[in-house]
Amino acid sequence: MTAPDTRGRLLLMPNTLDLGAAEVPLTDVLATGVILAASRLLHWVVEDARSARAFLNRVNKVAPLAQPLQQTQIAELPRPPKGAPRPAQPAGPSPWAALLAPALAGHDIGLLSEAGLPGVADPGALLVAAAHELGIRVVALSGPSSITLAIAASGLNGQSFVFHGYLPAESGARRARLRELDATSRQLQQTQVFIETPYRNAAMLETCLEALQPGTRLAIACGLTLAEGWAHTRGVAQWKAAKAVLPDRVPAVFSLLG
Amino acid sequence: MTAPDTRGRLLLMPNTLDLGAAEVPLTDVLATGVILAASRLLHWVVEDARSARAFLNRVNKVAPLAQPLQQTQIAELPRPPKGAPRPAQPAGPSPWAALLAPALAGHDIGLLSEAGLPGVADPGALLVAAAHELGIRVVALSGPSSITLAIAASGLNGQSFVFHGYLPAESGARRARLRELDATSRQLQQTQVFIETPYRNAAMLETCLEALQPGTRLAIACGLTLAEGWAHTRGVAQWKAAKAVLPDRVPAVFSLLG
Repeated sequence: MTAPDTRGRLLLMPNTLDLGAAEVPLTDVLATGVILAASRLLHWVVEDARSARAFLNRVNKVAPLAQPLQQTQIAELPRPPKGAPRPAQPAGPSPWAALLAPALAGHDIGLLSEAGLPGVADPGALLVAAAHELGIRVVALSGPSSITLAIAASGLNGQSFVFHGYLPAESGARRARLRELDATSRQLQQTQVFIETPYRNAAMLETCLEALQPGTRLAIACGLTLAEGWAHTRGVAQWKAAKAVLPDRVPAVFSLLG
Repeated sequence: MTAPDTRGRLLLMPNTLDLGAAEVPLTDVLATGVILAASRLLHWVVEDARSARAFLNRVNKVAPLAQPLQQTQIAELPRPPKGAPRPAQPAGPSPWAALLAPALAGHDIGLLSEAGLPGVADPGALLVAAAHELGIRVVALSGPSSITLAIAASGLNGQSFVFHGYLPAESGARRARLRELDATSRQLQQTQVFIETPYRNAAMLETCLEALQPGTRLAIACGLTLAEGWAHTRGVAQWKAAKAVLPDRVPAVFSLLG
């Protein structure tokens, strides 16, 4: 027998994939129950407070917020050191415990990322880890992740895949890494997935077409869930022939299978 | 200039994660816009016709179907040979072209899996690949995948992860594979994700606790999106001490990071 848990929970709140720029209705991307849950939360930990407020304004139009936005507590996640692939785990638990204090005091906390699911390809994972260590219940609410949507749309192997995040920025290292992923995908029949910052989409495609075998299938999902979004899967040779140009302001997910 | 595309699209329709068993409201898991899209479709390709009809009955309660269910065309995906990890690509395109015929004739087709996103850890990927080859537009609708929800809930590294599908069923091979995943995860700081059929959940946990290093973190997300669902991340030594028992009828996703 354990005493009833009087602590609040950490709710992993999915965000849209439009980075606030597009006019996709919130109700096309998030479940009503999830929007309602967002409207009730008084405590948030977020990647960026400004865009979190924009998200809550969108929520408010569908499900009025339980309290005015000005009174909602919005704390930001520690920012990773510039250039670091992911934030280092601090020595002590203190910054995470402070962020999770409302849950220890009995209030649910929402964790919100800039896009998609918090903790997947963003800095929220360390807060989730801290919640587990403190015995705070973690609840992942249903919502989209551009990674699995891109895999679904690719038609490549969805039974075995790797997500690599960002590839090296330096062009020689990037080319070498792409060759390595191509060989691995061929050997293991394992889809290799990675992302790029939107303004480098076109350069990434160019490097892919240089570095990959002509028969490798390359899938690009651009602007997932957006009205102008598209997903194409073609052999590298066909991509070359198609002379596709990727937009520089819309997120893209790249997947390949040799 | 290209002629306007008069072909229909292949809409990748997310399903709930409850396998039809639980009483989770559809509107807690799927966006209203997605449910509406489902209600309008007259042509479906599905993993299992019976559960697809059950899904459409749930849709009908939220958004009345555009035509009676009896008149909706529901075709099943070819079943993979028993024991095959994934269906082999047939020599000719014919079975897929037949399934995609409505799109070639101008109608949208919905692709539906038993749970989550079609084409991710299910046999739908080959239909998506065929659609790309036939130049049919593929649109992934926003919805949950248990894989990315489990990674979000784990607090493990969500910037670098691998999904392996099912591990070998034979106990020696499974133990060896788990040791290999443990070592890889430690070396690359890459989260290793896999699934098991629910009635083997308890045995899988047992084998994990035998095969993994005591300091490896093991995350289990059980019954994601369900009211009785939970997600815990603990060191292997703590899992042993916790003497957790996994339910045998609820899907679980396992993730580890050494």
